[in-house]
Amino acid sequence: MAAPVWSVDPRTGKQREQVAVEATAQEVDTAVRAAHEARGALADRTVRAAFLRTAADRLQAARDQLVEAADAETALGPVRLTGELARTCYQLRAFADIVDEGAFLDVIINHPDDTATPPIPDLRRHKVPLGVVAVYAASNFPFAFSVAGGDTASAFGAGCPVVVKAHPDHPALSELVAKVLRGAAAEHGVPEGVVGLVHGFDAGVELVKHPLVAAAGFTGSVRGGRALFDAAAARPVPIPFHGELGSLNPVLVTEAAATERAEAIGAGLAGSMTMGVGQFCVKPGLVLVPSGAAGDALVKSLTEAVGDTDPGVLLDRRMRDNFLAGIAERTGLPGVDSPVTPGAGGEHTVSAGFLTVPAGKLTGEGAYDVLLEECFGPVTVVARYEDEAEATAVLSRLPGNLTATVQLSTEEAAGQGRGAALLAELTPLAGRVLVNGWPTGVAVAPAQHHGGPYPATTSTSTSVGGTAIERWMRPVAYQNAPEALLPPELRDDNPLGLPRRFNGRLER
Amino acid sequence: MAAPVWSVDPRTGKQREQVAVEATAQEVDTAVRAAHEARGALADRTVRAAFLRTAADRLQAARDQLVEAADAETALGPVRLTGELARTCYQLRAFADIVDEGAFLDVIINHPDDTATPPIPDLRRHKVPLGVVAVYAASNFPFAFSVAGGDTASAFGAGCPVVVKAHPDHPALSELVAKVLRGAAAEHGVPEGVVGLVHGFDAGVELVKHPLVAAAGFTGSVRGGRALFDAAAARPVPIPFHGELGSLNPVLVTEAAATERAEAIGAGLAGSMTMGVGQFCVKPGLVLVPSGAAGDALVKSLTEAVGDTDPGVLLDRRMRDNFLAGIAERTGLPGVDSPVTPGAGGEHTVSAGFLTVPAGKLTGEGAYDVLLEECFGPVTVVARYEDEAEATAVLSRLPGNLTATVQLSTEEAAGQGRGAALLAELTPLAGRVLVNGWPTGVAVAPAQHHGGPYPATTSTSTSVGGTAIERWMRPVAYQNAPEALLPPELRDDNPLGLPRRFNGRLER
Repeated sequence: MAAPVWSVDPRTGKQREQVAVEATAQEVDTAVRAAHEARGALADRTVRAAFLRTAADRLQAARDQLVEAADAETALGPVRLTGELARTCYQLRAFADIVDEGAFLDVIINHPDDTATPPIPDLRRHKVPLGVVAVYAASNFPFAFSVAGGDTASAFGAGCPVVVKAHPDHPALSELVAKVLRGAAAEHGVPEGVVGLVHGFDAGVELVKHPLVAAAGFTGSVRGGRALFDAAAARPVPIPFHGELGSLNPVLVTEAAATERAEAIGAGLAGSMTMGVGQFCVKPGLVLVPSGAAGDALVKSLTEAVGDTDPGVLLDRRMRDNFLAGIAERTGLPGVDSPVTPGAGGEHTVSAGFLTVPAGKLTGEGAYDVLLEECFGPVTVVARYEDEAEATAVLSRLPGNLTATVQLSTEEAAGQGRGAALLAELTPLAGRVLVNGWPTGVAVAPAQHHGGPYPATTSTSTSVGGTAIERWMRPVAYQNAPEALLPPELRDDNPLGLPRRFNGRLER
Repeated sequence: MAAPVWSVDPRTGKQREQVAVEATAQEVDTAVRAAHEARGALADRTVRAAFLRTAADRLQAARDQLVEAADAETALGPVRLTGELARTCYQLRAFADIVDEGAFLDVIINHPDDTATPPIPDLRRHKVPLGVVAVYAASNFPFAFSVAGGDTASAFGAGCPVVVKAHPDHPALSELVAKVLRGAAAEHGVPEGVVGLVHGFDAGVELVKHPLVAAAGFTGSVRGGRALFDAAAARPVPIPFHGELGSLNPVLVTEAAATERAEAIGAGLAGSMTMGVGQFCVKPGLVLVPSGAAGDALVKSLTEAVGDTDPGVLLDRRMRDNFLAGIAERTGLPGVDSPVTPGAGGEHTVSAGFLTVPAGKLTGEGAYDVLLEECFGPVTVVARYEDEAEATAVLSRLPGNLTATVQLSTEEAAGQGRGAALLAELTPLAGRVLVNGWPTGVAVAPAQHHGGPYPATTSTSTSVGGTAIERWMRPVAYQNAPEALLPPELRDDNPLGLPRRFNGRLER
């Protein structure tokens, strides 16, 4: 008997409806084969771009229905979800533009050159799609990191069909979104199998092991992501696994910054750490604040702002349990205080809060290491440091992060003092380094990098922004292939007008 | 007692001298830490480029000594080794040019844009070095894929120090080359620890597990490479492992091509498969030749040319044993003939040869699968096919390859007939697809791609050519960082004149 897949209302914990059943190994195989068969239809870049734009149009047209379905399963609220859907559509269109431009094909052409050692024959390189991509949807972004999210959009852009492993927190929405994508595909003659959708933990494991799956994208926990990463690496034919797993997102507040604007920093931090009920991978989870009066003022401001925050509903029961257990473990440590105690709200809500600890507790291995681990939900840890060396000592102990942030004074930001040195100190820690901002809010932009040293991500790639498309391609070089046989991308006369490197010269 | 590391003469099997002892875990740690400490000295691109050029100059200046040392340990002969050293120096200089140009930094700048969804803040992305790179040297290229080879050159170019695990087939040469590199480093104020060198199997395993090692490059066997890949993936913090493991390098000869130039193809194949005593990762190991008169003429030409080939010395005793065992296993299969029997020459040499088999034996799983595995040394398998479908059936069963080659007739190459279709059929099989050429000879060029689906390589990257530098870098984005704090690479006025993407526009 196949296990039922239920849609659950996180506001009540009640089952809403049975959406599907968990996919068997055979059903995973069917989905992957259907996706594999659809790959030819994506070979034409014009079709890919049109498909992506139609997908955006159709998702936008279905907005009211989709937002309502998403809210019923996630409790994230219509405002946030409407914004997230808009972002998702923008992202699909952004990849359509990238596909049109074609720079991501990385065309490099070398004519024969006998002066090189050894001589260079006619060589022409571009990138081709890897094949079927397995996409593991996230709980916390039911649109932007799920069925029609960044992994899917970038995979389609690269010419790769996808099979999505739905997140159990929003199975009904996943089915709806997949249906919209399939409609968009059909409009352009792309087989509906181009977007497969499977439910169930075991199905997810089968998926990453399937011989026709060529790569995987994942957004989720360190434990789940690492297990799938390990499975991908252990295959007879290993595949790239681009997982975004976990991040503490440290923030360093300089003494001068705290002196200059303690109140604004406290309020800004409160907004960032409680946004989306703290359920962001880029939530600031550790904030280094100077000891003394300026830091005290910051903590006071934070206390007020966090204290004013309404309780919220977490995405599922397990997350709430983990949050409460994580808080209990952390507040049980001697020296850890909670000016605003995070914890259970009503039966299904949690209230935001934050902890404080002397930074000196975090400079050496021990029980306090748990404070250097991500705790999903509306909580952050404020570590009070005595001097720069102590702050540096804490930072040097951190694992990899998606982001690292520094709050500088006006003078430091203008280049007087340690600003540049702090930027250099934070760079090894993270994939995105912010000055005088907050890490929540990840723009979809060519220059974006949403990734970082492990466990932030399992590869050096990004899951947001234009370069995310690179994950799903591999280069191929043709040697001495006559023009008549070459794909148009590689012909001398450049019929498609692609940016390229031609005999060493960059052409745009 | 540390195990001694001996230099061995492959022509006699005799030990020449003790070069070193195998590195202990502690010595590996010392080497890695010294490399890590040297990373700051490589931060300046001007220094990196100058260091690479000086390394090339000094290797060239030491040519006679190096070629003699290499020949004594590899028996590859002074002509080949002189050429390989020249290639190695060219490669070092090519990466210096790449470092100067700076396109590999992939600079992308976005000014704030409120029209995007969500709005884009100031974002500036470039790539930074990963850290210490572990380089596993190859047996068959004592210069070009060893201590000062492509992995090392590209790592230095990226700003990464290296620790090389020397190949046991040329430990004395490895020490000499490392010394030259250290001299070049010292000339530019770079600590000598920028190039570490360790000997011993266990040291190689320690190296890939070391917490300060950030990535690895490998050239060698499937077995050895996979073991190290697995170790890299199993680390608490997994690292990128760019391994080039094994490749069959299929060649498809069309009926029309065989009819047009049977003799030339036979002679060309003989030259390619026996070059360097068949010890190339791109040796053509499976050749699909039509049955019938034209194919017979090709085999006749091949028979004559291979029969005229002198016996040669393989790189070490184990390789010779494996070669002879591999031949025995293959020739023992019913239906496998050997028009020129490969096998033992004198006590330390082997003679070249080739096998033939009906392609029909290779279309389904079974004992004949061994013919689809690489056999290192001067042998190839000629599979005679009855029709196109049979050739396609064999090709569809192949694992990933570095190269795939098609021999076409003049008409087919001009676009009449199946030429383009065959190119498309070969593309999924390999990273480099050749028309009317031979895969041996891998040019160092921007458009080169030396990699391919597993087991050709363990990643989608290349180990030869300009883009090899990408393996050792990761992107970092800065958000709202004031110009005064930004590295010069990311400033609006582009003081370094870097190619970049600026507000969506490609600037070159």
